[in-house]
Amino acid sequence: MTSAPWLELSRTVRFSDTDAAGVMHFQQLLGWCHQAWEESLERFGLPAGSVFPGGRGEQPSVALPIVHCHADFRAPVQVGDKLLIRLEPERLDPSSFAVNSQVLLEEQLVAKGCLRHVAIDAQTRRRCALPDGVDRWLEASSLGRIQPL
Amino acid sequence: MTSAPWLELSRTVRFSDTDAAGVMHFQQLLGWCHQAWEESLERFGLPAGSVFPGGRGEQPSVALPIVHCHADFRAPVQVGDKLLIRLEPERLDPSSFAVNSQVLLEEQLVAKGCLRHVAIDAQTRRRCALPDGVDRWLEASSLGRIQPL
Amino acid sequence: MTSAPWLELSRTVRFSDTDAAGVMHFQQLLGWCHQAWEESLERFGLPAGSVFPGGRGEQPSVALPIVHCHADFRAPVQVGDKLLIRLEPERLDPSSFAVNSQVLLEEQLVAKGCLRHVAIDAQTRRRCALPDGVDRWLEASSLGRIQPL
Amino acid sequence: MTSAPWLELSRTVRFSDTDAAGVMHFQQLLGWCHQAWEESLERFGLPAGSVFPGGRGEQPSVALPIVHCHADFRAPVQVGDKLLIRLEPERLDPSSFAVNSQVLLEEQLVAKGCLRHVAIDAQTRRRCALPDGVDRWLEASSLGRIQPL
Repeated sequence: MTSAPWLELSRTVRFSDTDAAGVMHFQQLLGWCHQAWEESLERFGLPAGSVFPGGRGEQPSVALPIVHCHADFRAPVQVGDKLLIRLEPERLDPSSFAVNSQVLLEEQLVAKGCLRHVAIDAQTRRRCALPDGVDRWLEASSLGRIQPL
Repeated sequence: MTSAPWLELSRTVRFSDTDAAGVMHFQQLLGWCHQAWEESLERFGLPAGSVFPGGRGEQPSVALPIVHCHADFRAPVQVGDKLLIRLEPERLDPSSFAVNSQVLLEEQLVAKGCLRHVAIDAQTRRRCALPDGVDRWLEASSLGRIQPL
Repeated sequence: MTSAPWLELSRTVRFSDTDAAGVMHFQQLLGWCHQAWEESLERFGLPAGSVFPGGRGEQPSVALPIVHCHADFRAPVQVGDKLLIRLEPERLDPSSFAVNSQVLLEEQLVAKGCLRHVAIDAQTRRRCALPDGVDRWLEASSLGRIQPL
Repeated sequence: MTSAPWLELSRTVRFSDTDAAGVMHFQQLLGWCHQAWEESLERFGLPAGSVFPGGRGEQPSVALPIVHCHADFRAPVQVGDKLLIRLEPERLDPSSFAVNSQVLLEEQLVAKGCLRHVAIDAQTRRRCALPDGVDRWLEASSLGRIQPL
């Protein structure tokens, strides 16, 4: 079984990701999860500006704030490590979803992360349906996990 | 019931804490939790260098890596907001503990965070007992929650 | 000669400020300079929301983007260090100013930073006069340097 | 005239790079410059651990602290922007060098950055000759600029 190609992202650990303990600072992991998600949407065909505020073009009418996140750390990650981030998106209900990330170093699981988002109308701040693009990404990503290539 | 004075920290939201959605970027919260913990240890009387690598003086023989963290976001937090961070430390077993944080804005709970640490020998990387200083901080913090001042 | 009280800020170096070289990561310094400036405005009486976008209340009509920054590093800065940040604001012309920062550790100059801002109309993006509040802060700060208290 | 291939790096602006003004937060630029430099060394054939502390394998005997940095900002940079970072390394004397970065968006120069490093012996903290690898990278990079392909 293989993931869809937009669900497997690469990341090299940079010096600014480390702290004085000599390894990755814990907080960076959740940043990588978010950035891997952004890259995944982009590879799937959704430009950043269609999902996130602040992009070029018309601003999106739906915001996707994070309501929960968590991470588990299994092994130290060091500068220069070439990581694979495997995303497992999960629709939770019509207005929310989670992006689960597995972080692997040479096939060893070194960390996991999870970001849970809700969709809200950018004007009224009320919960609403997920934006079409994200909905298609969730649908396609879930197929990717079920059907082996 | 009142917290011990070293368990209530203040934090003002800065411009660099925000993102293009106009509010605090989610990842910052876990940074604040860690920094509030550092400030708490310091106020309790433990200098940074006695707990964290990289300080002035002899390096600590026990490292305290984070093995898990999570956070929940209840309400938007904006630049200039004056937050109160209330820590609730919790000993989990002889070699691990959690620091729970409640983040309040004018008495409203706007976010919660949790960092879980294990103690390992800095040389052998094996689990070991918590350092004395952190142990005393946990003990005193727990009393602070039981006995009203 | 003494600085005005809103021009001398304190900062403790936190673990997340460090990198695997065991000392402060260079990039943090410019963050501290900006945050010290925010704190200075606040102490002078200007709420964050009156100067920066994203605050509570009406959005400011003038934006103050940074057009240039620089920093010099003289001595290593370590976790737990208690720094004094001394600001020297400088009006450059009717629509721009610089905030120079000296970073001291026990009276030794360990780093310097500079942020140069221009004022632009938030709608038209054209250069405009500095906002009144910032203008008053510049004026008062300059007096503070000339007249000993 | 074309740069050597290890001197032209790509970078997509991510949501965490922005602030509540809706554009890139100024401080991120200097981080990108450092990360582009790390990527350049790697593409040239120098593993991170041979240059930076904290990598896998033997620790480098020479440290390369930053003694000065500066940046200029010409145009707003937004989430999703696909930037080209062009490095122009410059040997300053036998123990120091600068990495100049030009940041381009669709051939428009949007920002520039500069990091100046000195070589010091990691034990004695005294200035010393540049590490061989970095020296070769500087030599090859300078040839790349002089000789048109």
